[in-house]
Amino acid sequence: MVQTYSYPDQDGTITKGGYSNILVVDEHFAVRFLDNLPMDSGPPLLCAEITVYSPMKFFQLTKPGSHIGVVGLGGLGHVAVKFAKALGLKVTVISTSPSKENEAIEKLGADAFLVSRDPAKMQAAINTMDGIIDTVAAHHPLRPLILHGKLILVGATAKALELPVFPLLLGRRIVAGSTIGGLKETQEMIDFAGKHNITAEIELISMDYVNTVMERLEKNDIKYRFVIDIGNTLKAY
Amino acid sequence: MVQTYSYPDQDGTITKGGYSNILVVDEHFAVRFLDNLPMDSGPPLLCAEITVYSPMKFFQLTKPGSHIGVVGLGGLGHVAVKFAKALGLKVTVISTSPSKENEAIEKLGADAFLVSRDPAKMQAAINTMDGIIDTVAAHHPLRPLILHGKLILVGATAKALELPVFPLLLGRRIVAGSTIGGLKETQEMIDFAGKHNITAEIELISMDYVNTVMERLEKNDIKYRFVIDIGNTLKAY
Repeated sequence: MVQTYSYPDQDGTITKGGYSNILVVDEHFAVRFLDNLPMDSGPPLLCAEITVYSPMKFFQLTKPGSHIGVVGLGGLGHVAVKFAKALGLKVTVISTSPSKENEAIEKLGADAFLVSRDPAKMQAAINTMDGIIDTVAAHHPLRPLILHGKLILVGATAKALELPVFPLLLGRRIVAGSTIGGLKETQEMIDFAGKHNITAEIELISMDYVNTVMERLEKNDIKYRFVIDIGNTLKAY
Repeated sequence: MVQTYSYPDQDGTITKGGYSNILVVDEHFAVRFLDNLPMDSGPPLLCAEITVYSPMKFFQLTKPGSHIGVVGLGGLGHVAVKFAKALGLKVTVISTSPSKENEAIEKLGADAFLVSRDPAKMQAAINTMDGIIDTVAAHHPLRPLILHGKLILVGATAKALELPVFPLLLGRRIVAGSTIGGLKETQEMIDFAGKHNITAEIELISMDYVNTVMERLEKNDIKYRFVIDIGNTLKAY
């Protein structure tokens, strides 16, 4: 099923963007959803999951039994954990917040949890991971993360990060970047999600809540992803 | 021929290190030189060339017709150019010193030369190279170098470099490090050097000149590599 939106526009015209009542799109740019993938918690994968899935494939981190680290347990990180587990990988979540350990392991199924500000534990973990997907979109130290083969940055930060050179040289390590993914791979990712019943963790909101959401985003008061229930709540406006 | 040293020690004993009169080594750790590879300008390849050859192979930059950049025209950079040309690559030398252009192109055979401090020319060259071998062992900006796919650092610097994140993300670029290489690859590199008559550019000195060399090194007064003529000049001491 190719998903289209069916609520009416205020003035009856076709508008552009995610809030349109009709979206006309070349079939090449449409992604087919399996019927079991919900229309609220499925679509966030089109951004969050493809961003981590694509580099995991490209940098050959999807082989069952591989051990990957996921830095940051936000919108991108939490689906990275779900996909990695479904792919049969060992997953260690690395976070600045010790409070996220329970969530990472009990809810999302991660195998291990590391507090990035705990030097002794980070040191003990050196070279234990085949690669790390770093989803942090803020300035942060790379040194504790660089000692695991491939470090893939997917979080965009305007300020340059500090790249320690010796740890990169010794062990022929890689720091790479990646952003989003192509349509073929997006379809592959969505098919995998449907098959394995993987969805994003979301908070479904009505359209009249969006201004509150903007305030909550500023306070970092978000549990993974907000999704607006366009079909049921936009028509009221 | 496995090369051994044959000059006598002062006290007749076997000592360790590069100045020993006899070097006992497991054959696994000996590198065989073709007879045409000189014993003064050949051995520097065991450090300088393997350091650039190994990552060129590992990061798949040795395919004939590929275009690689070599940053820094010193001990490592000048042999990187010679090998890359012998491998059939297109080579662009990138240097802070415009004065090195003639040397790079006329003497070493590079195809092009870029002054890294010329923003317009660096901008025009974006995405034209498959990868860059960066031999600079000092703090330097990565931004102009990052926009060419793979950037491989082989120069060790104690201070962290600045890693711009957006250019890394867009284009799925890689910054990697590498250091030296294994024995199997070293033998392969030396065989290639012998076959193609590739040697390092050296200044051959006698043992009594070494203190002057230390002074010259501090002033950066070196043309690629100093080699001590141990066999002819150490015995005088």
